[in-house]
Amino acid sequence: MSLIVQKFGGTSVGDAGKIKNVARRVVDTKQAGRQVIVVLSAMGKETDRLQALADEIDPAPSERELDMLLSTGEQVSISLLAMAIHALGHEAKSFTGYQVRIVTDSSFTKARIVRVDADRIQRELDQDRIVIVAGFQGMDENLEITTLGRGGSDTTAIALAATMKAEVCEIYTDVDGVYTTDPGVVPEARKINCISYDEMLELASLGAKVLQIRSVEFAKKYGVPIHVRSSFNDQEGTWVRKEDSSMEEVIVRGVAYNKDEAKLTIKQVPDRPGLAANIFSTVAAANIVVDMIIQNVGEDGLADITFTVPQSDSQQAMDILDKLAQEQDMGEVKCDTKIAKLSVVGVGMRSHSGVAAKMFQSLADEGINIMMISTSEIAVSCVIASKYTELGVRTLHTAFGLAEAGS
Amino acid sequence: MSLIVQKFGGTSVGDAGKIKNVARRVVDTKQAGRQVIVVLSAMGKETDRLQALADEIDPAPSERELDMLLSTGEQVSISLLAMAIHALGHEAKSFTGYQVRIVTDSSFTKARIVRVDADRIQRELDQDRIVIVAGFQGMDENLEITTLGRGGSDTTAIALAATMKAEVCEIYTDVDGVYTTDPGVVPEARKINCISYDEMLELASLGAKVLQIRSVEFAKKYGVPIHVRSSFNDQEGTWVRKEDSSMEEVIVRGVAYNKDEAKLTIKQVPDRPGLAANIFSTVAAANIVVDMIIQNVGEDGLADITFTVPQSDSQQAMDILDKLAQEQDMGEVKCDTKIAKLSVVGVGMRSHSGVAAKMFQSLADEGINIMMISTSEIAVSCVIASKYTELGVRTLHTAFGLAEAGS
Repeated sequence: MSLIVQKFGGTSVGDAGKIKNVARRVVDTKQAGRQVIVVLSAMGKETDRLQALADEIDPAPSERELDMLLSTGEQVSISLLAMAIHALGHEAKSFTGYQVRIVTDSSFTKARIVRVDADRIQRELDQDRIVIVAGFQGMDENLEITTLGRGGSDTTAIALAATMKAEVCEIYTDVDGVYTTDPGVVPEARKINCISYDEMLELASLGAKVLQIRSVEFAKKYGVPIHVRSSFNDQEGTWVRKEDSSMEEVIVRGVAYNKDEAKLTIKQVPDRPGLAANIFSTVAAANIVVDMIIQNVGEDGLADITFTVPQSDSQQAMDILDKLAQEQDMGEVKCDTKIAKLSVVGVGMRSHSGVAAKMFQSLADEGINIMMISTSEIAVSCVIASKYTELGVRTLHTAFGLAEAGS
Repeated sequence: MSLIVQKFGGTSVGDAGKIKNVARRVVDTKQAGRQVIVVLSAMGKETDRLQALADEIDPAPSERELDMLLSTGEQVSISLLAMAIHALGHEAKSFTGYQVRIVTDSSFTKARIVRVDADRIQRELDQDRIVIVAGFQGMDENLEITTLGRGGSDTTAIALAATMKAEVCEIYTDVDGVYTTDPGVVPEARKINCISYDEMLELASLGAKVLQIRSVEFAKKYGVPIHVRSSFNDQEGTWVRKEDSSMEEVIVRGVAYNKDEAKLTIKQVPDRPGLAANIFSTVAAANIVVDMIIQNVGEDGLADITFTVPQSDSQQAMDILDKLAQEQDMGEVKCDTKIAKLSVVGVGMRSHSGVAAKMFQSLADEGINIMMISTSEIAVSCVIASKYTELGVRTLHTAFGLAEAGS
């Protein structure tokens, strides 16, 4: 009998009525002759409610205790779904992360799954039960409760699909699938029928918010097909799966943008060996992740080094760099938070040239200045002034013909 | 270093402000040089909120799933208290029932504690931490989450106090202690300073609602002194402890009442061997608990059998008995739900006679008719018409001099 993992997000289980809808969908799948494992997030705004309670008590709470608190959200939704399935006359049992031995490392609030014990789940499936597992949570080797970070339920679902060798992992959400770009910015954005793991990874890391990056990495590693679809209708959504030759026919699969970065520039960095390494290791030591980097060497032999960091870390990065600049005879440090990164992604780029040139030209035609550029095998990104974000996204979406029917 | 267990009920942790108050009290105890284990109930009306969610989905939910759901309430409050203690600059860690191996049997919603593993708690105490444990919950041998029934957090606290050999188990509540009777009925009711386990057990089983009966049984078995006190002030409350000779000086310790029973009468039961046994085994088979029983044999050799059951079970008991009466040639079955049971309790009764006589006379003087009587070594109970409940309680409270200062 084929096995399917179905994951439902917070909006899909937002109240009792919606939980009953999920129960009906799960039971339908079961009655169609499949074994079903369901993974749930917490109900609607429950995680936010719990977080607010914590904030009232301690603005910087212990991460261990935060995980203890937040993991209750999924435990509530799984038990309610089990009840709703019982009410429809079917067998189901809910399990917390520790009960099915979702073992993680000990990084509270952002733990990584180390392994999952298939035995307990298999035993329940063998008894013809629907198995419901709390998403987002696990436990470490010391029985401490951990959570996987926002969006972690996707990772739980895919880890279970990989461990239990499911045919597919369905991710139910409040949108119809993955779009060629944000439909809020470009109304003509089209649902993508099929996308490769690598494209999905690039889109997710470049700003698209449908799937957690780690969950896609997991799916790619174990070859689990993902089907992202709406919990409110029965239409096909977007399949995320192993790349095949037909995928290369589309040069650009989607356009992503990210307004959450800031650009830092250190002027007049002396040309001394190890100085650039010194800058970036100092920033890394503060756990600040650097994204794009460029260096311009002037005629005087002094370099301007520019790079981007998450906006939320930019003030801390400035403080660190100001201190370093004084110690090491560097020039002024400047920060620009009014930037955005636009990216085009597609595996077709590997075999088609001219994507970058077309991107730069399209933006130039609209008078949008490009401050920084970076490329990977299947993506090109440009940093521009944030006020041009929407115009830039629309321009690229049209330039690469994404509104037209394709796959 | 002496160890103390402090248990706080739902009203004591009803919101963020109250949780901060509890944190301060716990830290004060720690700073006074004691090791502290804290046991918490769920916040205020949280259990009711969760129960309402379940009711919306399935009016008769699976007890396993109900325990999965309800056990989240305590997990929320323990994590928040740990945060509040951290905010005061002290070390604390919260633990769910399964993390400290509170092992129970598998009777979901009313599980009994089988054993508690002291090691994990001891390790944390040895590191000078305040240990916070979720009340009301445990796990069975299959790692299934169980709950101990309403008031179960008291039992958790006393089980931990017994296991860890604590000096005392403090039960913090929203009243000042155990009273001679319900102050809502008798304004002159007095706080009892000291009461024996047996008296407390009788009062609790006869209607007083301060402590869960099972928790007192546990305390008696392991000789754990209980101190019931208010979480809103620092006054001494009521000590529940081993009986000593001074306790016998007080003949009646308190007056309890219970309006939750119903009286069933089967008329004209033939005098056949085994028929009474047949009646009560049939009722017991439906899990209905019978309390008081009387039998009147008439001159015709036929008996009227009268007994009391919980009011919530009375309709089911009637249905069972009607059927049995027809099969076995018994007479009419009648049910009276408008009854109340009044009880006086005190270990002094063992050495003083005349308590029952005084009780009957006092009630008779007020024109209150007694329908049924039962006695134990340290209690006398009378069933009366429920409309006389308050009058009866006040009469007995005065007759036995309970408003006057004593111990």
